Amino acid sequence: MELRRDPITQSWVIQQTAEASWATSGVCPLCPGNEFLCPPNLYVYPYGGPSWQVRVIPHRNPIYQIEGDPARRAEGIYDKMRNIGAHEVVIENPDHRLPLAQFSDDQATQALRAYATRITDLKKDLRFRCVTLFQNVGPEAGQDLEHPHSEITATPFIPRRLAYELRAGQGHYRNKERCLFCDIVKQELDQQVRAVAWNDLFVAFCPFASRVPYETWIMPIYHHASFEEDVTSAGKQQQLGRLLKSTLRRLSTVATAYHLVLHTSPNVKARPSRPDAWQTLAEDYHWHFEILPIILGKTRSYSFKEVYFNAPPPPEVAAKDLRDAEPPLP
Amino acid sequence: MELRRDPITQSWVIQQTAEASWATSGVCPLCPGNEFLCPPNLYVYPYGGPSWQVRVIPHRNPIYQIEGDPARRAEGIYDKMRNIGAHEVVIENPDHRLPLAQFSDDQATQALRAYATRITDLKKDLRFRCVTLFQNVGPEAGQDLEHPHSEITATPFIPRRLAYELRAGQGHYRNKERCLFCDIVKQELDQQVRAVAWNDLFVAFCPFASRVPYETWIMPIYHHASFEEDVTSAGKQQQLGRLLKSTLRRLSTVATAYHLVLHTSPNVKARPSRPDAWQTLAEDYHWHFEILPIILGKTRSYSFKEVYFNAPPPPEVAAKDLRDAEPPLP
Repeated sequence: MELRRDPITQSWVIQQTAEASWATSGVCPLCPGNEFLCPPNLYVYPYGGPSWQVRVIPHRNPIYQIEGDPARRAEGIYDKMRNIGAHEVVIENPDHRLPLAQFSDDQATQALRAYATRITDLKKDLRFRCVTLFQNVGPEAGQDLEHPHSEITATPFIPRRLAYELRAGQGHYRNKERCLFCDIVKQELDQQVRAVAWNDLFVAFCPFASRVPYETWIMPIYHHASFEEDVTSAGKQQQLGRLLKSTLRRLSTVATAYHLVLHTSPNVKARPSRPDAWQTLAEDYHWHFEILPIILGKTRSYSFKEVYFNAPPPPEVAAKDLRDAEPPLP
Repeated sequence: MELRRDPITQSWVIQQTAEASWATSGVCPLCPGNEFLCPPNLYVYPYGGPSWQVRVIPHRNPIYQIEGDPARRAEGIYDKMRNIGAHEVVIENPDHRLPLAQFSDDQATQALRAYATRITDLKKDLRFRCVTLFQNVGPEAGQDLEHPHSEITATPFIPRRLAYELRAGQGHYRNKERCLFCDIVKQELDQQVRAVAWNDLFVAFCPFASRVPYETWIMPIYHHASFEEDVTSAGKQQQLGRLLKSTLRRLSTVATAYHLVLHTSPNVKARPSRPDAWQTLAEDYHWHFEILPIILGKTRSYSFKEVYFNAPPPPEVAAKDLRDAEPPLP
């Protein structure tokens, strides 16, 4: 496997030489008792107790390899590098049947703590310019192991969407000396048309230019660039966990499958291959979750062409549907 | 329906308020004898004869509306405009069962002539900054009418991927005083690793940083920015048609569904809303077709997240598979 840079978009594409799936023979490797099927823990909570509540392990067939140097090089006019990076699996709960939406407050708090801890740890590796957490939930989203889990990847490059966010955020800050995302949050809370739910610290809303029906973002109302530096107290973890859970429960009334992606600031300590603009981030980036539900027959547009077609309903109606959705209680 | 600008990527997203499908009740509106089910022809070949071989009509439920002004306006910090534009359907052949890959040379020539004629005509409308032709073939690609056809859209904005191409092409030209796409063509013909097939004028190859397995581009070997100004002679139309047909037949051995998109230079005569960089195009753009096959269970990666994961095979193997594929003859 290697990373190749698209000469058109300048973004990196992973060229897989084999499928990165985790084949199981009817036995769930993420369930308690089957830890011997997995690589050793990178994180476990509670530590040293009789049984774990949360654990993080390396992916069995990782997309990225942890050892080595990117070895950036040319192939004629093209650019490539080795697929170094990290690929981890977060098992937020020993219960095979319990999705994040149904967690207790304490379980959600522990999951968010594990996310922040692992991201902080991976950012100490200065080869990695970006660390992301995501969930693929449901077969339509490509979920390969049935046991609920998240994945964390650390990459030696800035992914495309994050680069656009950084560029847009920096441009806005340069023009207005305000954070673009703070402006978005303020307008959504003022208009209360696309806002789905909020508490003292966080807001969930359907973005103005939604790419897929019922696309939902969760953002801190206050300014902060980095999830892992921000969501470190039990109080914030609980508030965020509650809003995340209730948003997922609302979304479950319209779609059973979704992608969830955490967007946090890139690794500002990582030495970029050349001086670039992603150095001043405290003011112009703002961490958030993006949730992209998969509604079959409607979401194809997301993958197609380079014009996004958001199928009905528009975000104002989607937000209303989600606000009105009675989240099924655990 | 309206167009909304994503404040992050600065790209325009169509917000549909209703599904733009063309419901039929078992009768094919594109077949001879059922023309009364369609809007009036915009183009027909041969003109005035007893029966048509190619015709172009407005889409029955268009994504874009032909009448009016974009009426660009703000909603707080956001930008939006009306969905003005054109949305046409090209019926390349009266035969309900004959895909483009199986056309005769003369039929392919007539199809390409219809494409060039309609694009040239639409570019006379200075509200439209970009004209694109695409095919969605197979249910997995969202083909809604069974009768083989293409669609043409004209938009008041430059779609995202085309904007990246223009930016990359201009940057390369500024640095090297050479066309980026010409450099790509030269390397592919020199290496002959990712090249699939070629003739005197055109080459088909799997791009270095393929986004999906068996992604294939068809490009002129010589430099030209605009398909509709370039492919006007019967000789070029025949050569291009032959390579396009044989490439689609090769691809049919690995996938039954695909998206095909024609990338041609934007409408340089259209007055941009503000002075921008897309004004000098003769030297730094290069028209081409991009074909994105849909291989179920492998292509999801294309839609997911903002890192492209190209599943196996890598483009070098894909190109070999396609070179070795014996194109089934008509």
